[in-house]
Amino acid sequence: MKSKHLLSIKDLSIADINNILTKAEKFLDKKNKKKNSFSDKNIINLFFEDSTRTLTSFELAGKQLGASVINMSIATSSIKKGETLIDTAMTLNAMDPDILIVRHNMSGVPYLLSEKVNCSVINAGDGSNEHPTQALLDALTIKRHKKNIAGLEVAILGDVLHSRVARSNIYLLNKLGAKVRIISPPTLLPPKIEDLGVKVFKNLEEGLKNVDIVMVLRMQKERMSGTFVPSEKEFFKFWGLDRKKLNNAKKNALVMHPGPINRGIEIDSDVADDIGRSLILEQVKLGVAIRMALIEQLIK
Amino acid sequence: MKSKHLLSIKDLSIADINNILTKAEKFLDKKNKKKNSFSDKNIINLFFEDSTRTLTSFELAGKQLGASVINMSIATSSIKKGETLIDTAMTLNAMDPDILIVRHNMSGVPYLLSEKVNCSVINAGDGSNEHPTQALLDALTIKRHKKNIAGLEVAILGDVLHSRVARSNIYLLNKLGAKVRIISPPTLLPPKIEDLGVKVFKNLEEGLKNVDIVMVLRMQKERMSGTFVPSEKEFFKFWGLDRKKLNNAKKNALVMHPGPINRGIEIDSDVADDIGRSLILEQVKLGVAIRMALIEQLIK
Amino acid sequence: MKSKHLLSIKDLSIADINNILTKAEKFLDKKNKKKNSFSDKNIINLFFEDSTRTLTSFELAGKQLGASVINMSIATSSIKKGETLIDTAMTLNAMDPDILIVRHNMSGVPYLLSEKVNCSVINAGDGSNEHPTQALLDALTIKRHKKNIAGLEVAILGDVLHSRVARSNIYLLNKLGAKVRIISPPTLLPPKIEDLGVKVFKNLEEGLKNVDIVMVLRMQKERMSGTFVPSEKEFFKFWGLDRKKLNNAKKNALVMHPGPINRGIEIDSDVADDIGRSLILEQVKLGVAIRMALIEQLIK
Repeated sequence: MKSKHLLSIKDLSIADINNILTKAEKFLDKKNKKKNSFSDKNIINLFFEDSTRTLTSFELAGKQLGASVINMSIATSSIKKGETLIDTAMTLNAMDPDILIVRHNMSGVPYLLSEKVNCSVINAGDGSNEHPTQALLDALTIKRHKKNIAGLEVAILGDVLHSRVARSNIYLLNKLGAKVRIISPPTLLPPKIEDLGVKVFKNLEEGLKNVDIVMVLRMQKERMSGTFVPSEKEFFKFWGLDRKKLNNAKKNALVMHPGPINRGIEIDSDVADDIGRSLILEQVKLGVAIRMALIEQLIK
Repeated sequence: MKSKHLLSIKDLSIADINNILTKAEKFLDKKNKKKNSFSDKNIINLFFEDSTRTLTSFELAGKQLGASVINMSIATSSIKKGETLIDTAMTLNAMDPDILIVRHNMSGVPYLLSEKVNCSVINAGDGSNEHPTQALLDALTIKRHKKNIAGLEVAILGDVLHSRVARSNIYLLNKLGAKVRIISPPTLLPPKIEDLGVKVFKNLEEGLKNVDIVMVLRMQKERMSGTFVPSEKEFFKFWGLDRKKLNNAKKNALVMHPGPINRGIEIDSDVADDIGRSLILEQVKLGVAIRMALIEQLIK
Repeated sequence: MKSKHLLSIKDLSIADINNILTKAEKFLDKKNKKKNSFSDKNIINLFFEDSTRTLTSFELAGKQLGASVINMSIATSSIKKGETLIDTAMTLNAMDPDILIVRHNMSGVPYLLSEKVNCSVINAGDGSNEHPTQALLDALTIKRHKKNIAGLEVAILGDVLHSRVARSNIYLLNKLGAKVRIISPPTLLPPKIEDLGVKVFKNLEEGLKNVDIVMVLRMQKERMSGTFVPSEKEFFKFWGLDRKKLNNAKKNALVMHPGPINRGIEIDSDVADDIGRSLILEQVKLGVAIRMALIEQLIK
């Protein structure tokens, strides 16, 4: 990899991406998990935002490689004692970890920290900017079902404005030659999003036509209050993915979601739980393998 | 074992129980602890209730077997983000753990989750239903002091109504041939408890007569408010185990408690700290060994 | 070591100290980290106070030695259920850990617990009493820069009254033959501190004259309210270490701080970030090595 950090999908060449996807598939075989060669490696998960799945996924990935993994959540951190963000990172860096995995609700924090520390930094989600490992695991999920990503029609549906997952997926899918479209209510559409190389649809039925993959985004409850969306019920009626709306897509179109899902808001249980169409749990499974591959790539 | 889960003592045959007790004794020897053969195994502790001793005991048991152990407490979980209990479990299951160890304040949650996931589930305490590993460690503690459990007179004393420990112990001690009696104030006695094969005593002195083991139950402070019990002082006077009351039991009767103890409420310090009579700390010690044996049994 | 605990610097002979410092330097070489010989050892971090750096440092130290490390913070502990401090410690002790590492906001708690348990106890900071591993890592930091500690002039600057770091450093530096002075506003000076073998300066410029090392202490925000110190601004003006004040010391004087630092209160960023003068991040780095050495010493 040209960079020792993973801050943005933009840091990765196509060769880097293919490398990570190939390595990750290797880790799906249980025999390739625990490697004692990583027993002298230390990983610190520095999470300033609550998280179940991403934190657990990185923790498992590190431990399955045999590394020592330390979790630091903001609740127990010295930030409360008035230490600055950068001082916290430099203090942890002084303890000689191999990787610092950072999640923060402000865009740019992992980049800022990567300039200060000498270990590798992985962006585990920063504000509404990027979540590169989510995009990588999404790409692996698609690849395992559709073989080639190039040429696929992928629709990203929902709250694109606040979604770091959307941004990382747009970058990655474009790099790999997919055609990406955005389907979103006007209030949740970022300005000039077309400049990132996506086609915008403000009509859901039209937007789903001829689509191979529908990526449904998580809708934050705190946005269901008038400014962005009138109500949960209204949002589900017009933008929530149910069987009927999904029928506008290709017959074998598959459904993805970064989780955790809000049943009855952005996705109907009937679709989310359809094992023939929904890849949601497979995304979780592949997430651990992708993170193992990335960690191995960065610290070997 | 006939089941790949441990949800209830009822899942276990007498052979299963003896197997676990025998294995656990082997682990009391330090040389038999850390086994690298489990280094590719992953255990997730999914605790929806605060816990010191049970969580730490399971964590230590898993780590001493060389497995990777991940703790998830409700505070950091996506439940707060509106994800359902089952979605949380299925997400964790998708990460391919070998065992999910579940504690929840509602009866039946471990059973519900075991129907949805494909890893093993261990019930680490569900509501006022069961706490099977506590009963197993209690059985091992008794066995090490009294040799045979069959034929022993065991009294369970206190708040039986809310006690998952009582329920699991009643099932297990009955299976192993002990004679179980319940000593409890009428307000804390579950209806039809006799149907589980116990003898009920509403008089403490009488109930303790000829008893080999007194298992004192923990009294929840929140029940000391009139409905169940008039006051802490009143409860201690009539139902708290002190030296004088204990003198009603056999001369060599031993005292147990699942912990944490409330000194001066359900048990007097004089009895709790009597190293000739109290097995409380030994129960803790044997708890780690029992959990190691159970984990080994489920994932080997 | 003559004691199986480390509760106070007073427990250590000069030979013990030199032993730990020498071992710690060995661990600075990455090759000497992970040792599988400790894979059957268990360490419990029992922290009743929030901490980033000390907890992480001990956790990393234990894991790099290959031991199983379990963190218990008060938030998840049974203390909330009414269990006494000593019962908590004895319960953990019954699980057979090799070391209990204790931090508490009351002076004397580690000592109290060491009398009750049979594992080793390390004091990770107790009230305003002691923080012996901080003093050891400070000594190693000084030794690596000044070769000999004997004969050095070391000034400890700031809130000595509430500082466990100051107390442990006074004991240790005196043992190793340094000349220790205290520079402190009268309101933050403990009575009879001269009895510990230090020279007291109430004037900062005078106190820094001819000094080799300035140890700046952390100023707790909650003391900036009139009783101890009129205001943050006032404190910084008279007692905060900036470049101009530092010029009173020897030309090659070095600056230390136990962290986390309060920029613009007890130390100016210009000094804290001066890589030619500030040893703050090196202290953090050496802290992990010191704790590895101490753990190895106690449980080998």
